[in-house]
Amino acid sequence: MSVVVQKYGGSSVADTEKIRKIAEGIIERKKTDPKMVVVVSAMGKTTDQYINMAKSVTDKPCKRELDALLSTGEMISASMLAITLESLGCKAISYNAYQLDIHTSGNHGKSLIDDINVDRIKESLDQGYVVVVTGFQGINDEGDITTLGRGGSDTSAVALAVKLEGRCEIYTDVDGVYFTDPRTYPEAKKLDEIEYEEMLELASLGAKVMHSRSIELAQKYGVELYVGRTCGTVKGTYIRGGKNMKLEDKVITGIATSDDDSSITIKDFGVEDVAALFEDIAVKSISVDMISQTAPIDGKLSVSFTIPKDDVDDCVELVKKYVSEDSIVVDNDITKFSLVGLGMKHTAGVASKVFRIFKDNNIKVKLITTSEIRITCAINSSDKQVAIQKMCDEFNI
Amino acid sequence: MSVVVQKYGGSSVADTEKIRKIAEGIIERKKTDPKMVVVVSAMGKTTDQYINMAKSVTDKPCKRELDALLSTGEMISASMLAITLESLGCKAISYNAYQLDIHTSGNHGKSLIDDINVDRIKESLDQGYVVVVTGFQGINDEGDITTLGRGGSDTSAVALAVKLEGRCEIYTDVDGVYFTDPRTYPEAKKLDEIEYEEMLELASLGAKVMHSRSIELAQKYGVELYVGRTCGTVKGTYIRGGKNMKLEDKVITGIATSDDDSSITIKDFGVEDVAALFEDIAVKSISVDMISQTAPIDGKLSVSFTIPKDDVDDCVELVKKYVSEDSIVVDNDITKFSLVGLGMKHTAGVASKVFRIFKDNNIKVKLITTSEIRITCAINSSDKQVAIQKMCDEFNI
Repeated sequence: MSVVVQKYGGSSVADTEKIRKIAEGIIERKKTDPKMVVVVSAMGKTTDQYINMAKSVTDKPCKRELDALLSTGEMISASMLAITLESLGCKAISYNAYQLDIHTSGNHGKSLIDDINVDRIKESLDQGYVVVVTGFQGINDEGDITTLGRGGSDTSAVALAVKLEGRCEIYTDVDGVYFTDPRTYPEAKKLDEIEYEEMLELASLGAKVMHSRSIELAQKYGVELYVGRTCGTVKGTYIRGGKNMKLEDKVITGIATSDDDSSITIKDFGVEDVAALFEDIAVKSISVDMISQTAPIDGKLSVSFTIPKDDVDDCVELVKKYVSEDSIVVDNDITKFSLVGLGMKHTAGVASKVFRIFKDNNIKVKLITTSEIRITCAINSSDKQVAIQKMCDEFNI
Repeated sequence: MSVVVQKYGGSSVADTEKIRKIAEGIIERKKTDPKMVVVVSAMGKTTDQYINMAKSVTDKPCKRELDALLSTGEMISASMLAITLESLGCKAISYNAYQLDIHTSGNHGKSLIDDINVDRIKESLDQGYVVVVTGFQGINDEGDITTLGRGGSDTSAVALAVKLEGRCEIYTDVDGVYFTDPRTYPEAKKLDEIEYEEMLELASLGAKVMHSRSIELAQKYGVELYVGRTCGTVKGTYIRGGKNMKLEDKVITGIATSDDDSSITIKDFGVEDVAALFEDIAVKSISVDMISQTAPIDGKLSVSFTIPKDDVDDCVELVKKYVSEDSIVVDNDITKFSLVGLGMKHTAGVASKVFRIFKDNNIKVKLITTSEIRITCAINSSDKQVAIQKMCDEFNI
């Protein structure tokens, strides 16, 4: 009997009543799938509350200690779910990152899972327990608590599914994966299935349904993912591989937007410093997304790139090592707007059509990056709504 | 340079402003005592909130999971204090029970510390860090989180002082140890010093300033304790051994009262079952305090004893194995009223004087137990105030 790993996000475990509903669903499901592992996020807005508490003390809380603080949120929800399951007559046991040795490497707040020891989980499953696991957290070589970054519980769940050779189901507050964010574009339709590759582009570009690292991991090990609404009745979306998926023929599968990044532009930047700067940024685990560079004139060039808004201060500090403050321009008013579709591989002229639509609607494109199956433009946040509407009209989605 | 272990209770770390004040005090103190270890309780009423949350789900939350839940309270306060110290320019590092292997045995919720690995603490102290440790928690043989029971952070602090061969200072929301609870008897005076043995009787009888196990531990290893107000200016109370203490000559050093217990009386109880029942109770780690038994008639006797109110339900279940429910009487309206003093050893007639005072004031005595230096009576809670007043008058305290 294969293991089912379910993951419930913060809104699904926001209070004791919601936890009880999940618990009832798990007990029902256990009748057909007796080996259940449940990964939980922190209850509701707990993580934000802790971050705010720490930031009320200092702008830059010590990262080791912040991770220790944040990790308690998942410990609370995991033990509360186990208490609730037990109270309903279902054997349950919670495990945290220490107990499973969820071993991580990399920087605090952005750690990567190296390995998980699933012996205790297997033993507990064999004894008939529902196993509840704290998402989002790990332990590094020093024995310090680490966290995996926002949405990291998805990655925890997929990693467990990989190690347990099971399936993985992500439960959230939407019905599944939409071709674009239904909050911005209410006519958006839910997809029944999507390829890893397409989902990866959508996720990494701001479709907040899933953490992109979790999809990479699922793709790498061929774990089928299911995304659906917690206690929902509508069928969700399967994320899987395979060439015979119908979706492949569509030009555009999804539109993703993200307001989480800022752009930094550096003028009069020395040609020889570019590599060094991006190395400095990488060491700090700041993920650079869109990079655009002009051709150098007299050994000087301009370069623009986007990074998460949270990392702007850290990044500007790094840039200041190379140029004076006058040469650095930060733009916080950007939306990354991305069109994704495997069909782009075989369809010419998608990019030119996109640029034409932007131009005709007076939408200023600040930065552009593309891949085989994706076109991303940084535009003003105020243009987002119009851009989605026009793209849907023009591409008949 | 010897290590100073400080412990701050929940009210001392109730919010970020209070944590900042403590942090400033620690930084100041570090100038003269560079090796500082700080044990913290959970912030404010956090532990109660967690217990209430769990009890809103079920009357009897699974004890393993409840311990996992409660332990997060201290993790939060420890990392918040470390963040605050760091923000004030003081190197600080927090450790939880896993990181120090605070090894415990015994039942969940009432575990005993077997050992602590202080290697990491010593290393961090040598590197100039203030070491912040989560109180109240440990890890058992199974790697499960345990808690030490109410007030267990005091025990954590003393255990660390033992292992680090340091001094131990307990900071709380009162100026020190009083001869009786100043909330009940406002004229109560603070003691400058007190013997372990006397403090132990007071603490175990309900003087809530300190956890009695922590005093036993301090006595066993000769660790000097200091109890004082957090950020206070008044000198607190030293708890230490030594025959030359002035206090020894006083007949009564302190009066302790506790409303935390209930009494259970069993009628028509088989003589042969007494030992078996108390064994059953011991297995459940329920601490029985006052035991009073009548002489058996026809192989049947009556027995009364007090136990913590929280354990009444569990205990009644055990008793039901031996007698029908009709034979069990639970009395929740009792106050344990205790007079403590090393001087009692050498002074005749203290007990008879105490009973005379109760009788003259129409205070009904329900149960009596005594030791060499203590007389304890269970009385109605409503008589507590009068009893303290009269004892103070009659014994000139």
